Amino acid sequence: MSAATSNSLSRGETWSLLVLAGACLGVLANSFEGEGAPLVASIAFSGIAFAVTYGMIRWLGPVFIKAGLSGKDMAKPKHPVIPETMGAVCAVVYLLVLIFFIPFAFYKDIVAATSGGGNRDVVVEVHHVEAGRTLHRFPHERLASYLSGLLSLQCIVILGIGDDLLDIRWRHKVLIPAFGAIPMLMVYFVDFGVTHVVVPVPLQPYVGAFLDLGFFYYVYMAAVAIFCPNSINMLAGINGVEVAQSLVIAVLLMVNDALYLITPFRHPATDSHLFSLYFLLPFVGVSSALLFHNWYPSKVFVGDTYCYFAGMVFVVVGILGHFSKTLLLLFIPQIFNFLYSIPQVFNLIPCPRHRLPKFHAESGLLKASVTEWAIPPSPLIATALELLHRFRLARVRKNDQGQITESSNLTILNLWLIWMGPMREDRLALSMVAVQIMCGIFGLFVRHCLALLVFPADNRALFGFIL
Amino acid sequence: MSAATSNSLSRGETWSLLVLAGACLGVLANSFEGEGAPLVASIAFSGIAFAVTYGMIRWLGPVFIKAGLSGKDMAKPKHPVIPETMGAVCAVVYLLVLIFFIPFAFYKDIVAATSGGGNRDVVVEVHHVEAGRTLHRFPHERLASYLSGLLSLQCIVILGIGDDLLDIRWRHKVLIPAFGAIPMLMVYFVDFGVTHVVVPVPLQPYVGAFLDLGFFYYVYMAAVAIFCPNSINMLAGINGVEVAQSLVIAVLLMVNDALYLITPFRHPATDSHLFSLYFLLPFVGVSSALLFHNWYPSKVFVGDTYCYFAGMVFVVVGILGHFSKTLLLLFIPQIFNFLYSIPQVFNLIPCPRHRLPKFHAESGLLKASVTEWAIPPSPLIATALELLHRFRLARVRKNDQGQITESSNLTILNLWLIWMGPMREDRLALSMVAVQIMCGIFGLFVRHCLALLVFPADNRALFGFIL
Repeated sequence: MSAATSNSLSRGETWSLLVLAGACLGVLANSFEGEGAPLVASIAFSGIAFAVTYGMIRWLGPVFIKAGLSGKDMAKPKHPVIPETMGAVCAVVYLLVLIFFIPFAFYKDIVAATSGGGNRDVVVEVHHVEAGRTLHRFPHERLASYLSGLLSLQCIVILGIGDDLLDIRWRHKVLIPAFGAIPMLMVYFVDFGVTHVVVPVPLQPYVGAFLDLGFFYYVYMAAVAIFCPNSINMLAGINGVEVAQSLVIAVLLMVNDALYLITPFRHPATDSHLFSLYFLLPFVGVSSALLFHNWYPSKVFVGDTYCYFAGMVFVVVGILGHFSKTLLLLFIPQIFNFLYSIPQVFNLIPCPRHRLPKFHAESGLLKASVTEWAIPPSPLIATALELLHRFRLARVRKNDQGQITESSNLTILNLWLIWMGPMREDRLALSMVAVQIMCGIFGLFVRHCLALLVFPADNRALFGFIL
Repeated sequence: MSAATSNSLSRGETWSLLVLAGACLGVLANSFEGEGAPLVASIAFSGIAFAVTYGMIRWLGPVFIKAGLSGKDMAKPKHPVIPETMGAVCAVVYLLVLIFFIPFAFYKDIVAATSGGGNRDVVVEVHHVEAGRTLHRFPHERLASYLSGLLSLQCIVILGIGDDLLDIRWRHKVLIPAFGAIPMLMVYFVDFGVTHVVVPVPLQPYVGAFLDLGFFYYVYMAAVAIFCPNSINMLAGINGVEVAQSLVIAVLLMVNDALYLITPFRHPATDSHLFSLYFLLPFVGVSSALLFHNWYPSKVFVGDTYCYFAGMVFVVVGILGHFSKTLLLLFIPQIFNFLYSIPQVFNLIPCPRHRLPKFHAESGLLKASVTEWAIPPSPLIATALELLHRFRLARVRKNDQGQITESSNLTILNLWLIWMGPMREDRLALSMVAVQIMCGIFGLFVRHCLALLVFPADNRALFGFIL
């Protein structure tokens, strides 16, 4: 039995984690003493987050199973029972790290003496010389924005845990992220309130250079907040796919951030992208630790909590960092999966409780799962299905009378299996990672090269990042 | 079967709640349109919070039982199984209400146009005339403080739910509130950082009028944060007592706040006490709804989540409102219960898993529970116990050899039963409410009348409320 299946760390693991955590603590101690390089501190915190999450997931496994937080892995020959909702562990570690990071990001640059009760009588402002270009401390007024992001993440974690525990119906649970987004939108409203968007050049003669969306900007933000977590939750069901896709998106977002930080001049959006990095680095830390345990063959399940949490991290950085359109460009596979699922989501085609690929015990491979038609579909739906079949976007099976008796479930995972044939679970997950990376690189290319065609300025210059 | 035992609302309840919620919504709609009376909005929100919590607790009961969140009420003849952890429902409603309240409390008084990415190029400040004295909108710079309070509460709710689910050992769980307090302390550090305390007059010749506690001020705040939630969790175990004591403390804190708001001049601590009211009013709303279901005979249990949550609400208002000493004066029964428990907590006297009063099925009354001494106590402990017995602070039983064979468990509930004799569960809970009220009124008297003797100024005037 390998060390990974027991609930204690092997000697090698223990030492690796201790060395990692120790090195990161050393970096942290220096970064708080010195001139202040919050980005370095953030990297160190991410290392600690990785080590803590890795250990906690291992130790808490049996505790979770005892508490009834467990599930059967149906895509394994023996249907082993493994701990569920481990995303909650990730999320809690992540939140604590982001909280501990506050003093590193927000240096106390206003020393205030008060007469008590919070009314500041004497305010002494201390102006610090900016130490570096990209590694400078964060503007203090962004504290509320940072805290609102944290609040939204905590909200979604609480509601996600509730969902994992209480098994809420999907019609209700699609709205959970909307509740999670409320703190962010509220603080955006009282503290920031920018609702202008840059108008693409072709439309400028009609509506001007800027358009104030007003209330609809909030509707747009709420829609993004509902979409991202749910779309990650939708592209799920095989070992490692939830965490792996989230990691790819996070890394690509970080690449995007880096593009703003390595410009020769100090880019006006530097702060937004530092903000984004501070949220993404620890996310990569905790998610990698989870992936070690969730990759095929899984030792733990991540739970809806993780999908909501990961999606909300992206929403927070996208909205508070003002690059939600760029964010959506990294969600191309999720958007496709959502659009492709619509016929089943809205019950035009029967939707079974689970649509994940079917495990074939003899070969050990996954095959596309199907919906059986007890009564044949209406002519309209039948035609549509046959069209999909002809374009290889679904697979249908007919009986002797030419009536459709079953059709493949409309998810990107099943589609991939139709295209590529049955494959093992980890190869399917790897394929999804490859698709996510390809689509994401294409998205960034669109963002940084093609957007010039419709937007007035270089998108890495002054005006392109308001929305 | 009365309506209250089923899981749906009776017609009378439905209509009452709808009328209440409707009226409150009406008030809210007006208060956002008009000049802005956040205190009125807060009261309206509390009404809504009551209605929502009341309904949710009723509806979610069977869902919680199905999810395994249930417990047996051992102090009833038939040991009925009822839903557990209902405090989590309270807490979630409370948090959402406090989030929705943000725009009401923090009016957008800075309209900023940005060039995107969050850097404000043009800042237009709009100065509003203050509409009322006590009902004025909240200073905008307090937003971070409000958000940090919310973060701490969310933290403790997440950890509390974890505790209720995973059954953490008490040695570990006493530290849960410390983690919950971290966001508040972090933001206090970067945003506020006042660590001066007013020195009592008799000591002023030696240390001056103010003393900067520096790091120790944070230790003090963390200690308060650990004490309050745990002490409420300690005075628990009979129907209704957790919620009832929390309600008494909340109402007395609100009385204290009112004393600052009704002064003829505008008190400098007005903001702190408005802040406190904004946190306490919805707390009273959700807790009252819970008490309806948790009072004898209980339909639901509150769970550790509620105790932590309630304690942390008090910590947040006490620390961020700068009246943590006053807060502790309202915790006299809890402080007594804690000190009285120390011998058992530190295992000088054996400590059984549960120390709650024992239910006597024939009479239906509660009696003081006891610890049995398998081996007689050491002479020192025996002497101490006999002293306690003589002063009627415990009850011991001896065998023929004069050795102690059992002693009562050292909790305030058992002590009350020793003093007053066996009584029904609700009478015991009512007694505790009476004790809490008496001690609290005494505490407020000490605060507002006796503190003048050792503090330099009228405590309701300029300097008395820094700590």
